[in-house]
Amino acid sequence: MNTKRILLGIVVCLLLFPIRAQIVWQQMEPGVWKGVIGMPEDYSLLTVAGVLPLKEGFTRLPEVHLPELANEIVGTVQDGKTYLQIPLEKEEQIFGFGLNFQTVHQRGKILNLHVDHYGGKDNGRTHAPVPFYVSSLGYGILVNSARYLTVYAGSGVRKDSPNVPIARDRNTDKDWTSAPYSDAVSILVPARGVEIFLFAGPTPMDAIRRYNLYCGGGALPPRWGLGFTQRTQKLYTADDVEREIDEFERRGFPLDFIGLEPGWQSKAYPCTLEWDKKRFPNPVDFIKKMEKKGVRINLWTNPYLSPESDIYKRMYPVSGSHTVWCGIVPDMADSLARQLWMDKLEKEHVCIGVSGYKIDEVDGYDRYLWPDVATFPSGIPAEQMRQTYGLWMQRTTSKLYEKYNQRTFGLVRGSNAGASSFPYVIYNDYYSHQDFITALVNSGFCGVLWTPEVRSSKTGEEWLRRFQSVVFSPMAMINAWSNGTKPWSFPEVAEQVKEYAILRMRMMPYWYTEFARYHFDGIPPFRAVNLESGFNPKQSVRMEVENDNLDDNPYMEAISKEIKDQYMAGEYLLVAPMFTGQKERYVVLPKGNWYDFYTGEYVGNGERITVSPGLDHIPVFVKDGAIIPMMEPMLHAPKAGQKINLEIRHYGKAEGRYFLYDDDGETFDYKKGIFSWREINVIYDEKDRLKGIISKAEKGKPDNIAKVTWKFMTAKYGISDDGRSGSSENDNRCSGY
Amino acid sequence: MNTKRILLGIVVCLLLFPIRAQIVWQQMEPGVWKGVIGMPEDYSLLTVAGVLPLKEGFTRLPEVHLPELANEIVGTVQDGKTYLQIPLEKEEQIFGFGLNFQTVHQRGKILNLHVDHYGGKDNGRTHAPVPFYVSSLGYGILVNSARYLTVYAGSGVRKDSPNVPIARDRNTDKDWTSAPYSDAVSILVPARGVEIFLFAGPTPMDAIRRYNLYCGGGALPPRWGLGFTQRTQKLYTADDVEREIDEFERRGFPLDFIGLEPGWQSKAYPCTLEWDKKRFPNPVDFIKKMEKKGVRINLWTNPYLSPESDIYKRMYPVSGSHTVWCGIVPDMADSLARQLWMDKLEKEHVCIGVSGYKIDEVDGYDRYLWPDVATFPSGIPAEQMRQTYGLWMQRTTSKLYEKYNQRTFGLVRGSNAGASSFPYVIYNDYYSHQDFITALVNSGFCGVLWTPEVRSSKTGEEWLRRFQSVVFSPMAMINAWSNGTKPWSFPEVAEQVKEYAILRMRMMPYWYTEFARYHFDGIPPFRAVNLESGFNPKQSVRMEVENDNLDDNPYMEAISKEIKDQYMAGEYLLVAPMFTGQKERYVVLPKGNWYDFYTGEYVGNGERITVSPGLDHIPVFVKDGAIIPMMEPMLHAPKAGQKINLEIRHYGKAEGRYFLYDDDGETFDYKKGIFSWREINVIYDEKDRLKGIISKAEKGKPDNIAKVTWKFMTAKYGISDDGRSGSSENDNRCSGY
Repeated sequence: MNTKRILLGIVVCLLLFPIRAQIVWQQMEPGVWKGVIGMPEDYSLLTVAGVLPLKEGFTRLPEVHLPELANEIVGTVQDGKTYLQIPLEKEEQIFGFGLNFQTVHQRGKILNLHVDHYGGKDNGRTHAPVPFYVSSLGYGILVNSARYLTVYAGSGVRKDSPNVPIARDRNTDKDWTSAPYSDAVSILVPARGVEIFLFAGPTPMDAIRRYNLYCGGGALPPRWGLGFTQRTQKLYTADDVEREIDEFERRGFPLDFIGLEPGWQSKAYPCTLEWDKKRFPNPVDFIKKMEKKGVRINLWTNPYLSPESDIYKRMYPVSGSHTVWCGIVPDMADSLARQLWMDKLEKEHVCIGVSGYKIDEVDGYDRYLWPDVATFPSGIPAEQMRQTYGLWMQRTTSKLYEKYNQRTFGLVRGSNAGASSFPYVIYNDYYSHQDFITALVNSGFCGVLWTPEVRSSKTGEEWLRRFQSVVFSPMAMINAWSNGTKPWSFPEVAEQVKEYAILRMRMMPYWYTEFARYHFDGIPPFRAVNLESGFNPKQSVRMEVENDNLDDNPYMEAISKEIKDQYMAGEYLLVAPMFTGQKERYVVLPKGNWYDFYTGEYVGNGERITVSPGLDHIPVFVKDGAIIPMMEPMLHAPKAGQKINLEIRHYGKAEGRYFLYDDDGETFDYKKGIFSWREINVIYDEKDRLKGIISKAEKGKPDNIAKVTWKFMTAKYGISDDGRSGSSENDNRCSGY
Repeated sequence: MNTKRILLGIVVCLLLFPIRAQIVWQQMEPGVWKGVIGMPEDYSLLTVAGVLPLKEGFTRLPEVHLPELANEIVGTVQDGKTYLQIPLEKEEQIFGFGLNFQTVHQRGKILNLHVDHYGGKDNGRTHAPVPFYVSSLGYGILVNSARYLTVYAGSGVRKDSPNVPIARDRNTDKDWTSAPYSDAVSILVPARGVEIFLFAGPTPMDAIRRYNLYCGGGALPPRWGLGFTQRTQKLYTADDVEREIDEFERRGFPLDFIGLEPGWQSKAYPCTLEWDKKRFPNPVDFIKKMEKKGVRINLWTNPYLSPESDIYKRMYPVSGSHTVWCGIVPDMADSLARQLWMDKLEKEHVCIGVSGYKIDEVDGYDRYLWPDVATFPSGIPAEQMRQTYGLWMQRTTSKLYEKYNQRTFGLVRGSNAGASSFPYVIYNDYYSHQDFITALVNSGFCGVLWTPEVRSSKTGEEWLRRFQSVVFSPMAMINAWSNGTKPWSFPEVAEQVKEYAILRMRMMPYWYTEFARYHFDGIPPFRAVNLESGFNPKQSVRMEVENDNLDDNPYMEAISKEIKDQYMAGEYLLVAPMFTGQKERYVVLPKGNWYDFYTGEYVGNGERITVSPGLDHIPVFVKDGAIIPMMEPMLHAPKAGQKINLEIRHYGKAEGRYFLYDDDGETFDYKKGIFSWREINVIYDEKDRLKGIISKAEKGKPDNIAKVTWKFMTAKYGISDDGRSGSSENDNRCSGY
């Protein structure tokens, strides 16, 4: 003990002198470099996520060299911590730092990145506090640490800065500001070293793509995952669930998977992970029967084990020092704990056909989760366990489904960097419709998926408005575990709700393709308008706008502000949700011609427009030349190999090209190359008529298309590749969808 | 560099094994023990505060042995941090952890103690996040670290706890709770060791007294500091200030010191510390002239130095890496920086008679203060600098005034443990009247003073209600720097405001004595009712109340709840402020008979009463046998040696004894024993009449009393020690005060 203390003393003295070394950058993948400062910890976000870069995806990105910025990044180790400093130019805006709910522009913010429930303020405590940001100048930075990081995103002014602002007298100088120009992002990593990753552009979108590809490519859900889902009340029995499924069918509402809440377990909070014999006497038959009805079963759980679970005793020695609701906390950094956990899930659920999980309470909050003074047998500190628990949950369950060659699509409350490839959607208890949309905007900056779920509403209007939004999101869910609301619970809007649920289904070829692009190319299916090429990010910093008079130049004004309430859905769609009480709203359209989704009519180009669509519609706008593949209305997603009839819509006047993705929709065979990209072209023929052409599937590749019809939403006429007319004046004015 | 890294590697490996050693307790003062865990840092809160225990004060406390608790405290060093665990019994309640604004009971809370502006939530970020708490069982714990500490105040359950709660099924068990019983306070200290202090009781008040005495005894302000103070508008000139002082005099409003806001400086934010020549062409004469009018000058400043200050160049090398509003930050842990700072204040202000400071912006907030990645030439990390900057400010300025043998009384926005003896009152921008009262309650738990300042109001009612509260607080201040409100600004309540301002002055002998008790005995002048002996702290935990039916036993119900809106002012007074809009309120009276301050009438005993005093009065209640020494109305505090006429009030039916303190009221000569305690007794004479007796001042000791009159507020008659009748029926019903 004494020699240990002496040694400690010597090193503590040594450590008082900061270590400041040149960062050596190592290329990891094309356009991705890793820099090392000090002695990084072995346990990091990327190691926990177990990322395997999707190498093939990088080939479709521009070739780039190490950005000059790399040489300007400074890392110093002192006081047992690593201080990072990354330059910021005056006109730069930055985005990211995880799943924020109220802000998109992160410049000037101070954050303490900490996995937690969202507490109503963008302060770094959120479900996915991903230490990754993207600059409007076209690069991304990831700090690969599972510690609580303090981020000064352009806050704090160094006295020796070459760009030091001048002091002003607050007594008399009207130009005095409380926040003078800060020329760096500073990050405090409470560890003696860290890895930092630099993702090159040239565009911000390219940097995000590289990040997602480095993390394995985005998640590709099973096709059914993009259908409609409902979560049932917490004490529902098997019969109750069946009745609910039947009612969806009878009423003609789509339903692809249904979620069982805590009551499926014999004990919950803490959990046994075992079926309740009374409420679910025969889970095997139940699941089979529901699958025959076209509906899969998703199970709620949290990882905190009840003493009555049959794995409790074996898990006890590999669990943390502290309990959560008196349940033990599996030490997920320990391989035995992981194995016990996975074996249990496999035996109880996965092997009998459970399609996935809703993994609750792996985010926080502090009052019930293990404290930072908890210890784990693996030696991993509580802090790092907190930052990575959601990652472990996603990784272990994903692995389990890979073993069964069945894709899953589930829900999780906690995540972090490296999660892009996990087929999980984040959700929470916070219920602001506006902030839910801002979270959707931000999810695209940090490699996670988010659902603006519908839970309850005070009025039919709110119900419909929320429903319209969730239909344009990664998971179209009603989460009715506590109040039992059904899609038709508000009769005055039940018809509109149904129309949108069916629209969700009709758009499945588009959604599925956009998720394939997330997977293969790293392009987030839901994302900020700031990432659009027609939206000049360089002009997004307020001070740089040349003409900021709203009357003279509303577009410049608009894009200099944070855009928090509209987002891109896939390649072509700009969605601008309406919120309860709104009769009209502004929409900022990036440059290029934009068209109304419902009518095909021209709406604007690089400008701020006002829309007042009435209650029946959520405003959706479409890019010029857009090609939106849709299918006929169905109540359940097409099964593997099931043929569908395609309706291909074209918007605007420009020619268009789109690649439609297809595979079996259920297994991981796409990883072996068993998928197809069918090229769709809309071009002007010699008579200046728009003409649609779709390539055949390659030989031996999936081909699930029966019939193709074309719909030219804007053009007065058009023809399909077989020469038949695919549109008429009337078609252009289709109502509803 | 390489050997450094290798050594580092070895030790990092070594450090993975937790060091868990028996804590050896060393007695520091009677009833005060220090325990050491790991290798505590040299730089700590108590070293920065430079505490010198007031040894003499301990002699008046009961003799105690090391509490058994000491052996149950566990300290572990792991992951480079110290984990503390201090047992909590089921029926225990804990108080403290600094200047909280919304809660008094701290059990169950999770806090990150961090000097900061108060952001509206009791989460540990506050102006004085003192890592000291007091238990209802009668002991106090101080963690002497200048790091950001994470506190789990009875939150988190260890699986190997001997008191582990049982798991329940949330699906079906109605007794399920989200917060099962936690049997310890856990504290995470991000350092490889720490000192922990244990302060014995036997009562919670005794523990607090030991803490304050250990920190040098409470602050004893100059007498004028307890008078009335007004802060002027920020760009006021010398003439404006003089006019304002004259107006106070003309209108008959008391005024003892006046505060100049940023405009007195030639440049502010950042500051020159130099007089503005235009607004204050002759500061020396100005200060003298004002002093002749009986009004002292207090100066606002913050410590961030303008390039135009004449000490800027010398301070530059001993300032931090980051600026605040482009001003450099003196490295207060460096003795040269402190000397430059003190010399500047001395030369510019103290030597010409400035009476004190309002030291602003040493708390936060993060957006403008130095970031945690800032460095300082002394090598002290930014985190520790943040936690101690307010302490340094108080210590250096206090020292300066000691040099001049002149007491000061000022304002500061940031403080921490060890500050009890500093003559500073904390203030902030937050402006909830209710929460200001809760802060006053909590200030008594952590050795700081707090003013519920009056700034502006929407209505006369609010103005008066706030004013009534601030009169019963450490500093009776209107802080009108931004809006220029005057005490008489609301004509409809100007008379009542004046009455209370004069009451403040009349009570000066009582206030001054109570501050002397703070100094000599460590008894906080303003504090929670929980510390009263008639208020059973053991019953203050909700779950332990035997009969919690409000109708059956409202007192038990009341004290089981947090009492956040009433407080003790000195030995005898219980103050229960009224808030805007309230027509009536509850007051919880500890056991013992209580009387109305204004009428002397009996109001209750150990019960919850409802009062509806009208707008004219703030409810104040007085203990049985209370002796309240008052003086005649004066607009300025008595000067050194000035004789006053005393009115001694007695309340209730019990005999009473009180020691009245006196000294010159201005210098530090009391530290040389130049003070007096005059014994006042009220006893029943042989005819069963109450009789008041006051001892003469000891020979050679201060004696500033001219005439004494007695007022028996409750008793129908009474006599003074010279045999004259001191009360009548009419006197008992005096109006106003």
